Amino acid sequence: MLKVGYIGLGIMGKPIARNILNAGYTLVVHNRSRGVVDELATEGAIPAFSPAEVASKVDIVFSNLPDSPDVEKVALGEKGIISGAHAGLIYVDNSTIKPATARKVAEELGKLDVFCLDAPVSGGDVGARKGELAIMVGGPSEALEKVRPILEVIGKSITHVGGNGAGQIAKAANQIMVAAQMVAMGELLILAQKSGADPEKIIQAIRKGAAQCWTLDNKPQRLFRGNRQPGFKAFMQAKDLNIILDTAREYGIPLPSTAVNAQLFNAMLQSGMANLDNSAVIGIIENLAGERLQTHD
Amino acid sequence: MLKVGYIGLGIMGKPIARNILNAGYTLVVHNRSRGVVDELATEGAIPAFSPAEVASKVDIVFSNLPDSPDVEKVALGEKGIISGAHAGLIYVDNSTIKPATARKVAEELGKLDVFCLDAPVSGGDVGARKGELAIMVGGPSEALEKVRPILEVIGKSITHVGGNGAGQIAKAANQIMVAAQMVAMGELLILAQKSGADPEKIIQAIRKGAAQCWTLDNKPQRLFRGNRQPGFKAFMQAKDLNIILDTAREYGIPLPSTAVNAQLFNAMLQSGMANLDNSAVIGIIENLAGERLQTHD
Repeated sequence: MLKVGYIGLGIMGKPIARNILNAGYTLVVHNRSRGVVDELATEGAIPAFSPAEVASKVDIVFSNLPDSPDVEKVALGEKGIISGAHAGLIYVDNSTIKPATARKVAEELGKLDVFCLDAPVSGGDVGARKGELAIMVGGPSEALEKVRPILEVIGKSITHVGGNGAGQIAKAANQIMVAAQMVAMGELLILAQKSGADPEKIIQAIRKGAAQCWTLDNKPQRLFRGNRQPGFKAFMQAKDLNIILDTAREYGIPLPSTAVNAQLFNAMLQSGMANLDNSAVIGIIENLAGERLQTHD
Repeated sequence: MLKVGYIGLGIMGKPIARNILNAGYTLVVHNRSRGVVDELATEGAIPAFSPAEVASKVDIVFSNLPDSPDVEKVALGEKGIISGAHAGLIYVDNSTIKPATARKVAEELGKLDVFCLDAPVSGGDVGARKGELAIMVGGPSEALEKVRPILEVIGKSITHVGGNGAGQIAKAANQIMVAAQMVAMGELLILAQKSGADPEKIIQAIRKGAAQCWTLDNKPQRLFRGNRQPGFKAFMQAKDLNIILDTAREYGIPLPSTAVNAQLFNAMLQSGMANLDNSAVIGIIENLAGERLQTHD
């Protein structure tokens, strides 16, 4: 059976790694802080002390890290995957990072006959725990086919969108739409309330028509109960939007609406809302409008 | 049986009026240009020569007009509904206009014991023909209950959202979300293509997750086939967004993202795209990016 490694055992990485372990794979794990490594070791995982060590011991190495520089360091830095790489190793990155970084890593590791897949996920920590993530994959088909049985353990939909970097582009596209819906929801709720309508009835009136979306299906009831806890944290949404704007600038594409939405999420970081849910961007609209959404139990 | 009037027989008003007629109601019709009046007369409708004449002959009078000033004129102007009004008349406006105008009309006609409902619709000309509109109603419950059997002929969902003007606020909320989704779709498709991914695969990867929406379910395949015909015309979307911004200014609510989206739809009017579908706002992103979405049959 394939030996698997997992580097980066945070809010997403830990439940994903656990699902791989519980599916019966030999799993080598590494994380900067050691507590979670010890925890998974008691469940049967093999601890390692560097990305290089993980890479040297496995057939397929995953990572799940906060941002592009972290991935570059873990993949290509000192004691990185590159130092433990062997021909035929497959590297699957579940992080959400810049497409350009995904391509650079694939190019560098490709020189050592390591195959790379960028495989960012959507579905949050709940989806990670349940093994029900949506996985967007960029990279060579042959590598994807070898990894697919493991991806099927951690996700419910696996879409191969193109070559290296394409998975990250899909994730960027996803976040453009999610951010737009979150901001629109905030704007429409505050407009409705301040202009004298009942926001709950407004949502009821519009959610089955052309405005229908996952956001309106899932988020308003939480907001009406005063629940702005994540879910998906605002600072991660802000990070993703900044990746998108960096990528858009690189390719010379103006994104007027996404640029504004990015500013609103960046404003959350300056307003003590960084660790709230992405739907809590309504808080910025509230601050702008001087009107707070009414809540009830 | 109730006698019904319908004023404004355009792309939406004509099929709605026809459904009321076909349901067996006596229907008095008026329109500025007479061709469509003659057409409905051959089907059994009774022609009238002014809004006042319609109002004087019916129990319930509907209107469906382009914008707020048109409604104000038809309701309160010379030979308007106000001149033919009688106590107990119910006036139902299916137009999408400013909430403030809906309230003003209700207040003025209320002085003559006319009951008003603002009842804007969502679902386009297809929904109008099929009698499957979503109808958002503001105004007194008693009037709504009298009108409900007729609304059930023209729509599949009727939501009472509050007092006069609340129906228009619901429609505004709907259009905030719809515009956000249309612009986000345009931005993500052009970003995906120009950064080297296949836009169709990107849509496939994201449309079942947190980005899911009516827009992604219905519009991308039309765009990929090069079809930008309405549907819902861009200039109507622009008009609705400008109503929203006027209303937001009136209540002192900044709407940063909707304001940008309104500018992009306004740009369509200056770029020969006024009569295209609202999804054709991607054309403005194409112009900004110098990249045209690839199409196939």
